[in-house]
Amino acid sequence: MQWNDALASRMSRMKASEIRELLKLLDQPDILSFAGGIPDPALFPAKAYADAFTEALTESAGSALQYSVSEGYRPLRDWLVAHMAQIGIPCAAENILITSGSQQALDYLGKLFLSPGDTALVTWPTYLGALGAFNAYEPRYDRLDPQANRPAADIAQSAAQAGGKVKFAYLSADFANPTGETLDLPGRNALLDLAASLNCPVIEDGAYQALRFDGDPVPPILSLDIARSGSIDATRTVYCGSFSKTLAPGLRIGWVCASREVISRLVLMKQAADLHTSTINQMVTHKVALRLFDTHVATLRATYSARRDHMLAALAREMPEGVHWTRPEGGMFVWVTLPKGIEGASLLARSLETERVAFVPGRAFFADGSNENTLRLSFSCASEAMIDEGISRLGRLIRSTMAKTA
Amino acid sequence: MQWNDALASRMSRMKASEIRELLKLLDQPDILSFAGGIPDPALFPAKAYADAFTEALTESAGSALQYSVSEGYRPLRDWLVAHMAQIGIPCAAENILITSGSQQALDYLGKLFLSPGDTALVTWPTYLGALGAFNAYEPRYDRLDPQANRPAADIAQSAAQAGGKVKFAYLSADFANPTGETLDLPGRNALLDLAASLNCPVIEDGAYQALRFDGDPVPPILSLDIARSGSIDATRTVYCGSFSKTLAPGLRIGWVCASREVISRLVLMKQAADLHTSTINQMVTHKVALRLFDTHVATLRATYSARRDHMLAALAREMPEGVHWTRPEGGMFVWVTLPKGIEGASLLARSLETERVAFVPGRAFFADGSNENTLRLSFSCASEAMIDEGISRLGRLIRSTMAKTA
Repeated sequence: MQWNDALASRMSRMKASEIRELLKLLDQPDILSFAGGIPDPALFPAKAYADAFTEALTESAGSALQYSVSEGYRPLRDWLVAHMAQIGIPCAAENILITSGSQQALDYLGKLFLSPGDTALVTWPTYLGALGAFNAYEPRYDRLDPQANRPAADIAQSAAQAGGKVKFAYLSADFANPTGETLDLPGRNALLDLAASLNCPVIEDGAYQALRFDGDPVPPILSLDIARSGSIDATRTVYCGSFSKTLAPGLRIGWVCASREVISRLVLMKQAADLHTSTINQMVTHKVALRLFDTHVATLRATYSARRDHMLAALAREMPEGVHWTRPEGGMFVWVTLPKGIEGASLLARSLETERVAFVPGRAFFADGSNENTLRLSFSCASEAMIDEGISRLGRLIRSTMAKTA
Repeated sequence: MQWNDALASRMSRMKASEIRELLKLLDQPDILSFAGGIPDPALFPAKAYADAFTEALTESAGSALQYSVSEGYRPLRDWLVAHMAQIGIPCAAENILITSGSQQALDYLGKLFLSPGDTALVTWPTYLGALGAFNAYEPRYDRLDPQANRPAADIAQSAAQAGGKVKFAYLSADFANPTGETLDLPGRNALLDLAASLNCPVIEDGAYQALRFDGDPVPPILSLDIARSGSIDATRTVYCGSFSKTLAPGLRIGWVCASREVISRLVLMKQAADLHTSTINQMVTHKVALRLFDTHVATLRATYSARRDHMLAALAREMPEGVHWTRPEGGMFVWVTLPKGIEGASLLARSLETERVAFVPGRAFFADGSNENTLRLSFSCASEAMIDEGISRLGRLIRSTMAKTA
């Protein structure tokens, strides 16, 4: 069987992720890793989950283990209606679809909007997993930079020349993966203006939204869109949320919040693609969220915030002049820019060999493969001692690399 | 926002399922329903699940609640290697991908193989959910009938005229949804011959495979393919399995078993589409399968088998001459063919109104919308009293409808 002949054309766009291949190398116990972008498992509310699974199987095993509707478990959707209202997004249960993590939402949104050759606007850099999800639908990427004032007509013309239309603008607005940066209010309004000019949807990835450590919250883009449009059902913004960063990722529970027109089509898509998200996991997530969402997120904020502070202090102490980094107000990541000429991937190879420190080279986060002189550091799973030692080693390596390059 | 302008071309193929819309009407408690194709929730091994969730969260909460690899939980894949060997399919863990139910496997296989205009061969009738999953990838359908001896060149030529290639043949080989029928050994060999002539993969849907009540097991198509090819890695057959019909559907655990070339591409696809299937649900499914798979399936066989017998007896007693039905050796369904001119959908409308009996009209299972004079009855959730009463009422309705039509 010659499999290549049998494949769909989209498969030429689906390649192994650099990060994934890299992470396979990081299992050795002596590696100090800032590479993963995962929550600290020591902080999982394990007891609350154990109680909730027991309750679900005591109270209603028949329905917890059975098939359920594609839209999602109604009490969880109702909880999310209240949660969305708290962050400034008034909506109804009909505006919510439960997905198997927010990664699935990104896949479905690519499937919903993108025909081959269409243009997706993404930030430079952007979440690597979004590029992975969208690639299956064979888009062209163009750079999203709401504050650059590039005329919409120019963006639309480039898309038309490439044989398609601008189908959406995707971004993580709060504490983005990989940069940790937050789009400010003027930037959000500029983005909505741009999307209105292009007549395209906005996909707002809120995966890290709840993890703000300090500074003032900026209203979600969907919230601003509702204020402009009068009702969520008249908006162009599709909000993707996740419990992976607030409660636990292993249950794969995320959601989409958008106009009914979008949700009803995504429900059909979900029905065709995997019927529904795990029934019992939705019930249990509802129970745990009801019990401790706010208090648990407060604990996470305090813990991750202290780790961020420690990492920023270590960077200030250890990095030579010419190295720059972001100062995120939340999330899990600091983004480091090295002097031009120092390439993240080869730095990583040397770092693993001589310093036993891991991070993610930045290039993979750029749809055009540019900006090789960047890297992503995660502080979410790092102890203070590990940060001190790891950033010290990394600083030493960067200094010696700069000396050789100069 | 004009959403229609923003959508991908594939969305024109995604419509609400007739069955799904129908099932919304069936919640009324006085309806005797043979419509659902779901396992009896009274038979779920709820205690074993409760114990397994507690154990997973006591022994290893940190990993049970964390992200995990796209391939799936290794101990479950190892259990499946042993399970597949038991049904005649020697393979390695690298031949197994865990999916979120076998519905997800069908979606991924459509995504892997189908470009718009390619041809998918499906039986007439076939599993409605397979058509739903494949439709997103805009195929053309042609009829798969391995024993009809239609020349492969003829099938290939029709596909070429439609602007694509035959990309796979899909079928449920054992106790198929909706007919309950099983493809015999000569049929399976004819199918593999046809696929070899067409140089296309075979997708074998094994969702009901374990639910054989009587008769001799027929080797899985993948097993026959291995015998021809020498090794699973040289086969063209992709086997989709599911725990939904044997243990419980609510956890969404299925699997694909195929050559490494197929599995490695599906792993990339899963990584991009939803990262991985729920970690804790995979751990728990492994624990429950290890503890009771064989004994539990034996209980299901005995229970469903008695219900099938009761339904076949009721049909023989209640149906007028000119009505025919299948005699399945396993699974959940009996397929009824009415005299020409009696249309399943309008019969259902009358049945709900006057008899309060539900079933699924057969037309939706045909890719060409033909064979209106058919219907699907499920016996999996029906008590003997319900079967006696429901089939009696249905027989009365069909007799009166035949009298009016004649």
